Amino acid sequence: MITTDICIIGAGPVGLFAVFEAGLLKMRCHLIDYLPQVGGQLSEIYPQKPIYDIPGYPEIKAQELVDNLMDQIKPFKPTFTLGERVDHLAKQADGSYIITTNDNTQVHAQVIVIAGGLGVFEPRKPVLENLDHFEGKGVAYMVKNPETFRNKKVVLAGGGDSALDWTIYLANVAERVTLVHRNETFRGAPDSAAKVFDLANNGKIDLILSANLKELNGNGKLSSIKLESKNKEELTIDTDYLIPLFGLSPKLGPIADWGLNIDKNAIEVDTRDYSTGVERIYAIGDINTYPGKLKLILCGFHEAAIMMHSAFKYVYPDQKLSFKYTTVNGVNAF
Amino acid sequence: MITTDICIIGAGPVGLFAVFEAGLLKMRCHLIDYLPQVGGQLSEIYPQKPIYDIPGYPEIKAQELVDNLMDQIKPFKPTFTLGERVDHLAKQADGSYIITTNDNTQVHAQVIVIAGGLGVFEPRKPVLENLDHFEGKGVAYMVKNPETFRNKKVVLAGGGDSALDWTIYLANVAERVTLVHRNETFRGAPDSAAKVFDLANNGKIDLILSANLKELNGNGKLSSIKLESKNKEELTIDTDYLIPLFGLSPKLGPIADWGLNIDKNAIEVDTRDYSTGVERIYAIGDINTYPGKLKLILCGFHEAAIMMHSAFKYVYPDQKLSFKYTTVNGVNAF
Repeated sequence: MITTDICIIGAGPVGLFAVFEAGLLKMRCHLIDYLPQVGGQLSEIYPQKPIYDIPGYPEIKAQELVDNLMDQIKPFKPTFTLGERVDHLAKQADGSYIITTNDNTQVHAQVIVIAGGLGVFEPRKPVLENLDHFEGKGVAYMVKNPETFRNKKVVLAGGGDSALDWTIYLANVAERVTLVHRNETFRGAPDSAAKVFDLANNGKIDLILSANLKELNGNGKLSSIKLESKNKEELTIDTDYLIPLFGLSPKLGPIADWGLNIDKNAIEVDTRDYSTGVERIYAIGDINTYPGKLKLILCGFHEAAIMMHSAFKYVYPDQKLSFKYTTVNGVNAF
Repeated sequence: MITTDICIIGAGPVGLFAVFEAGLLKMRCHLIDYLPQVGGQLSEIYPQKPIYDIPGYPEIKAQELVDNLMDQIKPFKPTFTLGERVDHLAKQADGSYIITTNDNTQVHAQVIVIAGGLGVFEPRKPVLENLDHFEGKGVAYMVKNPETFRNKKVVLAGGGDSALDWTIYLANVAERVTLVHRNETFRGAPDSAAKVFDLANNGKIDLILSANLKELNGNGKLSSIKLESKNKEELTIDTDYLIPLFGLSPKLGPIADWGLNIDKNAIEVDTRDYSTGVERIYAIGDINTYPGKLKLILCGFHEAAIMMHSAFKYVYPDQKLSFKYTTVNGVNAF
């Protein structure tokens, strides 16, 4: 059993910064995230994309922001459980909680902070009869490490930025890249679409438009894919990998069953302290909702600061909170 | 007459970032500040001090944050009136406002944002009969440019960091520095106090403890100061300058008379959009108050974002606000 003051569900930018605000008030944090690394959407979906609306950063790459936040919270020695999903919450007689993950990790905490972003991200999957047979055996929903695909035959499917960007990138890595898209035009950036058409015209990739994935074949491991065009013509392509990039679908997950007030996949909170209405449970960042809510990282930072000042009373019931500026007092590490 | 969409009173970090959030919504800003430079307290009081609680910056010098914010808002070409105090507000028939400063600068705006920090800073002054005779004629409350004092006789008064730091600095600039302090010990950093005692022991400065300023003398310009010790002994020092550094005292200024709800020198706002209750006037940052308020720069950033989305309806009454992420759309300059 892991014991902590505050258990933060979600290790995205807002969950990470919450550790800092807790630390200033001498409260320790443990973070749990379903993703295998910290940073939430920033690290998972757009690590190399620039963000322009972090105050004080005219431009910062998403992953750089995550790295800086990790540096900022280092003095407060947060602990992490990554790659596990929070499944169960049990209230204790003294008001504290024990959280259990899908891997049976248990965390005992005085306060729970849900900083789960848009929820647990699950890739949107193509509807194919034997898809689950080939997951991890040729079918991948994300490009974790491009080197996996070096000198392999790869079929990508999709029409958004991810499909375009990875097609362009993997064209120089894989033995052969085929991009399959159900329409004639792309949803992604026009500039990227133009590059993909160029690659196809120059014979560097195969581009198959107005076609859908129909059937996966292989003996224990993917070896070919059957496509079907709009006018029902069939085509089979030999391949080592299929990467369907149809976007990620956020799900609230088991949190939806904790008795919180949920409005359109978001948790309703009181703007005075971002509490959920269930005692000792707070929600901050993109996962909460209130009148005027903006889903901005900078708003989550504010919510984290306010929320931790409210949570202090549960961690130190006998102490009065004395507010001090870091500029005056510095950051006193644990 | 200057014409703008949004007139922001206060060019501290929160007022500056508000320009960015306004700009994303295609609203132009003009800023007015009583201080001669942007940055508010950060530039005026502690430019070289590190701040530790700006999210994503484990440590940043106050002036560096201001510089970065200026870079960040550059695409939106804000305009500034610096060194002037907002004195008068006149509501127009169409709901807009005309602001007039103490120098008769006029600004016409659809929306007013008060981002005035702790208010207009005024130096705490010593109680001396003819003090106002010598203001600007030997008496200065701030060291704007140390070169003013080169090869001059300077008396500093005070026991805090400013008095200590400027004593140490000016010891190498002025012909002679005298530091007068009413106690035997200093409130400022022990390290700085030790340096000041060293300078005095080595004859580099004159240190007069347990003494108060008593009388200023001079013919149109300061020429000497009479001090009085605790046991009523008097001492007269020839000097070109007196710099009393007794701290800054924040005052709300003329804004206090605008019909806003004021609670303990702060403006009460609605947390849904940080509006003041007077239509088209908002208050953000340290100058506002609401249940759970924390006077943190990062909270002001959040308030600025929320507030600008609310103000949009006054600037573009016929348009629906469509919210777009900078990561997707970039920052489109004016």
